[in-house]
Amino acid sequence: MKIDNMLNQQGIWLRGIGPESEIVISSRIRLARNFAGYPFVHKSSEQDKQNILKTFRKMVEKKFDPETVYYLELQSLSPTDCQYLLERQLISKELMDGKGARAVLIDRNENFSVMVNEEDHLRMQTMTSGFDLSTIWDRINKLDDVIESEIQYAYDERYGYLTACPSNVGTGIRVSVMLHLPGLVETREMDRVFRSLSKINLAVRGIYGEGSPSMGEFFQISNQVTLGRTEKELISQIQEVIPQIIDYEQKARHVLLEKDQKNLLDRCYRATGILNSARTITLDESMELLSRVRLGINMGLITDISITKVNDLLLHLQPAHLQKLAQKELEEEEEDAFRAEYLRKKLKESD
Amino acid sequence: MKIDNMLNQQGIWLRGIGPESEIVISSRIRLARNFAGYPFVHKSSEQDKQNILKTFRKMVEKKFDPETVYYLELQSLSPTDCQYLLERQLISKELMDGKGARAVLIDRNENFSVMVNEEDHLRMQTMTSGFDLSTIWDRINKLDDVIESEIQYAYDERYGYLTACPSNVGTGIRVSVMLHLPGLVETREMDRVFRSLSKINLAVRGIYGEGSPSMGEFFQISNQVTLGRTEKELISQIQEVIPQIIDYEQKARHVLLEKDQKNLLDRCYRATGILNSARTITLDESMELLSRVRLGINMGLITDISITKVNDLLLHLQPAHLQKLAQKELEEEEEDAFRAEYLRKKLKESD
Repeated sequence: MKIDNMLNQQGIWLRGIGPESEIVISSRIRLARNFAGYPFVHKSSEQDKQNILKTFRKMVEKKFDPETVYYLELQSLSPTDCQYLLERQLISKELMDGKGARAVLIDRNENFSVMVNEEDHLRMQTMTSGFDLSTIWDRINKLDDVIESEIQYAYDERYGYLTACPSNVGTGIRVSVMLHLPGLVETREMDRVFRSLSKINLAVRGIYGEGSPSMGEFFQISNQVTLGRTEKELISQIQEVIPQIIDYEQKARHVLLEKDQKNLLDRCYRATGILNSARTITLDESMELLSRVRLGINMGLITDISITKVNDLLLHLQPAHLQKLAQKELEEEEEDAFRAEYLRKKLKESD
Repeated sequence: MKIDNMLNQQGIWLRGIGPESEIVISSRIRLARNFAGYPFVHKSSEQDKQNILKTFRKMVEKKFDPETVYYLELQSLSPTDCQYLLERQLISKELMDGKGARAVLIDRNENFSVMVNEEDHLRMQTMTSGFDLSTIWDRINKLDDVIESEIQYAYDERYGYLTACPSNVGTGIRVSVMLHLPGLVETREMDRVFRSLSKINLAVRGIYGEGSPSMGEFFQISNQVTLGRTEKELISQIQEVIPQIIDYEQKARHVLLEKDQKNLLDRCYRATGILNSARTITLDESMELLSRVRLGINMGLITDISITKVNDLLLHLQPAHLQKLAQKELEEEEEDAFRAEYLRKKLKESD
């Protein structure tokens, strides 16, 4: 499968570089758009969906260099391939689990992807490592313009862009930032942060998006409503809130260091000890331990493992990535054993 | 302190050699004897105790080569020194915590020790690595004869040797065998073994003797009563019972291997991972993990650590040994940190 080429590269969102990358893993903006003249996806006939796909594909052929993108129809992908794209956050669970004609356009450098026939006819997203909303905002605007030059969007003078779910009507934008907040979890302040964020209509989700539990102290923060607010306003809100959370997290880490550095160091090292020695390990446990190791690296307590390696593992320890690496289907037990084996191998390699 | 010389050697009972040494750590026989013409220790005046000490010391000077033994009076020892001898099982907690004139004669190779003014005027013990009662029975008989050649014991034609506690009257013998029984603990069969042993008047105690909790799956099995039975009978009973327990333990280990070898291997390796990486560790946790590692070695799952090293650690990770190694008093927190440091150092060294 051609997408397997991505296996040896990191998702852009996991490169571990960019502004504030100690705490901010990645930034992501998505826009929801719909074709004019077609019912929304959940009301579309299969023929409608086929037509939308056809129109989209023509646009791709005209506007994108085939050397720089992958155009993939979901029905031609194996379940493992779908899971693999989900783990790289290039498609959503909804697109994966959907029915009928669906597709995704993926930038080979993973700077953007466009899902076709997800909840809306088009869901485009751009992403980058670290905290950098302006870069991805510019990028998604250009992407939107390119698509709009060939496809007529459903747009209402009064409401703005029309979307299947009212919460997206208007700008159809969702801005989300993935953060690593072990300090706030450890000092039990995360609940307080949750509450303040929900008061200003920001949602906190787990690493794998909507409905997923937060794993290993990684959280996604994003806007909830778009109607009645401009893109600029929504971006500014996130732009202002994130530095405050970063500040809280840094203070919490400082408290941990002050209170009990030895204990913290002990737990960071024990995490590496277990990761280096386990013969079977679940995804959840490995995420928790890697979260601990990542904290240790950022606090200067662990110096022999790089953030890049930790981020790389966060990606590759997921089930479909492991199956691609193993080049075979893995039963749950085999998966846990292979994960442990891969961990030991990778942690032994020098960066 | 001259006894510090023992620091670099292992207690005889921890050499990890001898018959059945996979499961039997050590064998030990002690005899309780009292001087004729003196009240028992708990009724003795300080003058009586002094006289007993004096008589004993004279016997030592006459009968033992000073190059081969240490004669130590408890009142001249620091609390750390006492604790250190306790950890090596050369003295008992009762002797350490007692009052007034008390002493201990220690063979420099730790083949025997004789406590003076513990519960009885004399408590002599011989010990060896592995399961070998006949060797230590011969040894303690000779030791007993040497002492009796100079000291008149309290003896009654009808009851035999008189002792402070009725449970020791007669032969005054206690035979005890220290076993490593992780298989029986893991398969939850230890309770059943406890019950069967207590029915035949055998006691199960923790590694540090009477009243101590069993730590890290190490247990001491010994006879409870001596009255009305000959030494030979008591020794035969233990001689017959231990192989049965060894057999149960081996079966339990076999069950563990059959049932879930991968899981077992995982836990053994994780134990080494934690021992190799912790920055602070309690005695209890380190004993538990070393117990796991010892099982792994015996089952051929761990090949890069020797039983000798594990046994060495079982001894040296104890508080007073650590203080001797650190050459200073250690607060609890410092002790846990130093223990972790010592562990990491020792596990890195090749055997």
